[in-house]
Amino acid sequence: MPKTGPKLRLRVEFDGEHTLGPGKVRLIELVDERGSISAAAREMGMSYRHAWELLDDVNRCFGGRVLETETGGRAGGGASVTDFGRSLVTRFHAIRDKAIDALADDLRALEDLRKKKR
Amino acid sequence: MPKTGPKLRLRVEFDGEHTLGPGKVRLIELVDERGSISAAAREMGMSYRHAWELLDDVNRCFGGRVLETETGGRAGGGASVTDFGRSLVTRFHAIRDKAIDALADDLRALEDLRKKKR
Repeated sequence: MPKTGPKLRLRVEFDGEHTLGPGKVRLIELVDERGSISAAAREMGMSYRHAWELLDDVNRCFGGRVLETETGGRAGGGASVTDFGRSLVTRFHAIRDKAIDALADDLRALEDLRKKKR
Repeated sequence: MPKTGPKLRLRVEFDGEHTLGPGKVRLIELVDERGSISAAAREMGMSYRHAWELLDDVNRCFGGRVLETETGGRAGGGASVTDFGRSLVTRFHAIRDKAIDALADDLRALEDLRKKKR
């Protein structure tokens, strides 16, 4: 596997009770692509229940405007990401990209510190 | 509990096998303050074994230069953070502060999106 530079992972905590990070954002994207929570969960290698809980947390964090679940959603029915949910994904990626830009030199310096050992 | 703005948590991944984030950094700080892994682990509410594994990961990530453990260290002996380890902690905090600065407007915007629901 080719060596790559350090990767930045970024998570936002709200009121100490909700979080938004790369895992949940990826899950929202997959639900949007696949049209169901169960398909998205499978692709991420997690249980339907765990995926449902993660999505429910994001949805509650933003007043229920991220996903709409159809009747039977909890038992595996369809789910759709709202326009608001999509804008949230886009915004998260933009925040991450901005952080990567702002910290590029620092991440390189960290990597250099690691190499010095050899 | 007073409401506070969103908090940023930041983690760096190296070569897909090592990570450095706020938990490990706090652990290093506590080992430095308390002089032992077991005291630091207790303060963070984790087992000695778990703390040892986290510290071992950071130490291996940076060529063993972050901590020095005394004989018997694995069984609870003393541990000391090196100057290199201290500089790593300082650097991590600086990186986090820079990210918070760079993303202040975006984090505020995310919080505003949450409030709109009400």
